[in-house]
Amino acid sequence: MTLPAENTRIVLASRPVGEPQRSDFRIESAPIPSISDGQLLLKTRYLSLDPYMRGRMSDAKSYAAPMAVGDVMVGGTVCDVIESREPGFAKGDVVLAFSGWQEYAAADAHHVRKLDPRLGPPRMALGVLGMPGFTAYAGLLAIGKPQPGETVVVAAATGPVGSAVGQIAKIKGARAVGIAGGPEKCAYLAELGFDAAVDHRAPDFVDQLAAAVPDGIDVYFENVGGAVWDAVLPRLNTYARVPVCGLVSQYNLTTRPEGPDRAPALMSHILTKSLTLRGFIQSEFVGAMYADFIGEMSEWIHQGRVQYREDIVDGLENAPEAFIGMLAGRNFGKVVVNVGMAEQ
Amino acid sequence: MTLPAENTRIVLASRPVGEPQRSDFRIESAPIPSISDGQLLLKTRYLSLDPYMRGRMSDAKSYAAPMAVGDVMVGGTVCDVIESREPGFAKGDVVLAFSGWQEYAAADAHHVRKLDPRLGPPRMALGVLGMPGFTAYAGLLAIGKPQPGETVVVAAATGPVGSAVGQIAKIKGARAVGIAGGPEKCAYLAELGFDAAVDHRAPDFVDQLAAAVPDGIDVYFENVGGAVWDAVLPRLNTYARVPVCGLVSQYNLTTRPEGPDRAPALMSHILTKSLTLRGFIQSEFVGAMYADFIGEMSEWIHQGRVQYREDIVDGLENAPEAFIGMLAGRNFGKVVVNVGMAEQ
Repeated sequence: MTLPAENTRIVLASRPVGEPQRSDFRIESAPIPSISDGQLLLKTRYLSLDPYMRGRMSDAKSYAAPMAVGDVMVGGTVCDVIESREPGFAKGDVVLAFSGWQEYAAADAHHVRKLDPRLGPPRMALGVLGMPGFTAYAGLLAIGKPQPGETVVVAAATGPVGSAVGQIAKIKGARAVGIAGGPEKCAYLAELGFDAAVDHRAPDFVDQLAAAVPDGIDVYFENVGGAVWDAVLPRLNTYARVPVCGLVSQYNLTTRPEGPDRAPALMSHILTKSLTLRGFIQSEFVGAMYADFIGEMSEWIHQGRVQYREDIVDGLENAPEAFIGMLAGRNFGKVVVNVGMAEQ
Repeated sequence: MTLPAENTRIVLASRPVGEPQRSDFRIESAPIPSISDGQLLLKTRYLSLDPYMRGRMSDAKSYAAPMAVGDVMVGGTVCDVIESREPGFAKGDVVLAFSGWQEYAAADAHHVRKLDPRLGPPRMALGVLGMPGFTAYAGLLAIGKPQPGETVVVAAATGPVGSAVGQIAKIKGARAVGIAGGPEKCAYLAELGFDAAVDHRAPDFVDQLAAAVPDGIDVYFENVGGAVWDAVLPRLNTYARVPVCGLVSQYNLTTRPEGPDRAPALMSHILTKSLTLRGFIQSEFVGAMYADFIGEMSEWIHQGRVQYREDIVDGLENAPEAFIGMLAGRNFGKVVVNVGMAEQ
């Protein structure tokens, strides 16, 4: 294979104010990187788009350092090794990397993980068998701790995290209720085996939710915030657990919303119902749970007990639009950008 | 002993709107109750006043059913048994009961606990060796889980719960920082062995707090809410634990405070710092921890490692004023009403 002269990549052009705009991203050409001992030259097949990236685009303090303006956008990738200077890796290997929104990257070999194509499409390592699937698994089992017969509610339920949350809840004997936007997504939740689906865009959303949880809510896997959380909070049972995994509805907020101030009421709910709210990042649980996750999740997928859906976007140049759409809920399933089009 | 003809008691005259008023309480006379088999006739020595009572005066949904207007005010008491129709109890026994704001009460024998006067003043069963002490012990150890070298912050730190939280934190090898109102209370925290004391009434409270927690806050034992919580939240470390035990600053709120709405920012803190917020009522932990509590706490008191302070109010008729003052922080230590004055 002859390398092209240039590496196409997408950088952070400016920090978004509110909803990211196309102009916050810039497509650039750069030289193909060279590699040193211990490194690999990677060619991107697939780039994962995930809500956490919105946080990295801002300079607000968070669990990860923000990107600098001009940096290549971060992101998980599935790549082909096209040159190796590390024993144990060879040209042709397929790896999971964190090489971002670009066609080529140099990576330290100890920062990538070799994928076994016999286990299924390597792309799964960006979704159901990767960070989103593990986020669902760890947050639900380590924090949510659903018991047989309990009610588990999850929003963004057709997304890669939410769909895994609901299906794992079912495997654990709980009742799974999914919240999604629009009738098409709600219909898909029935296919996945959710016990009920609630459309957060419906005018009677609050009543739909009430009807879907006649025994209240024991676990709410929080990944959206906003109006959905407002509707869930009064339905939480005593001792309910709320793994707080994301707040996608508020990532684009530029100011504090108008009052009244509902923080005191939130604290009152926590107190009077003995609630547990626990924020988490999946990396906290990797050491304790990742091996179990890969084993169990692979088996559940093989058995058809966990299904997954991908929303594949063709071409790196379309990543910004797809990312903006995902934050607005316009995706349907795990968003993956097919970067290595020419090689498919 | 000849019984008086009448039982003086204080009932809920009306539900408070905001801060309780004297007119929300009414002193009544009623006949001395008679008892049936399995019951005891009790004469109250001491009545405990505690912030949770404010919640029971309202009809808002909470963890306990509200009182009805006209009911005798609820409360924990230390009483003398003056008549027993239950084997195993005899006139002269001293018991812990929940017989409320009155001089005499009939109680089912299985609802009281006999106290051993050799272990110390029976009044301790209302404070450091009772519900407040156990609230501190269970919330701090089961939820807060302080590790050696970590920083534990508690507000209302001279009160019966807060003072125990700080002293137990010290015993567990943590750094204890207390928040209290006024220099006199702050000076007392130094006597108790707190590493730092912060005056929430000082104009530079927020800066004082920052200076007192140079390594951030790992455990915040929440029992006040409001402006103290606002100052604590930005100082919480990643993985900090917040046992939510009470919110005394907001019990008298009649409307939601003006905006901006800070609930989304609170959720963001929980997410980005992997915080744990956990509401609790001590009764949840009685089965698992009460025996250990009595054993350990008795020993710590005996060793002088846990000290306690009482604020004793003479006369049942002064209970409403003392209760109103306690909600405003005008007490200094555990508030106990000396009801059985004539017998002292």
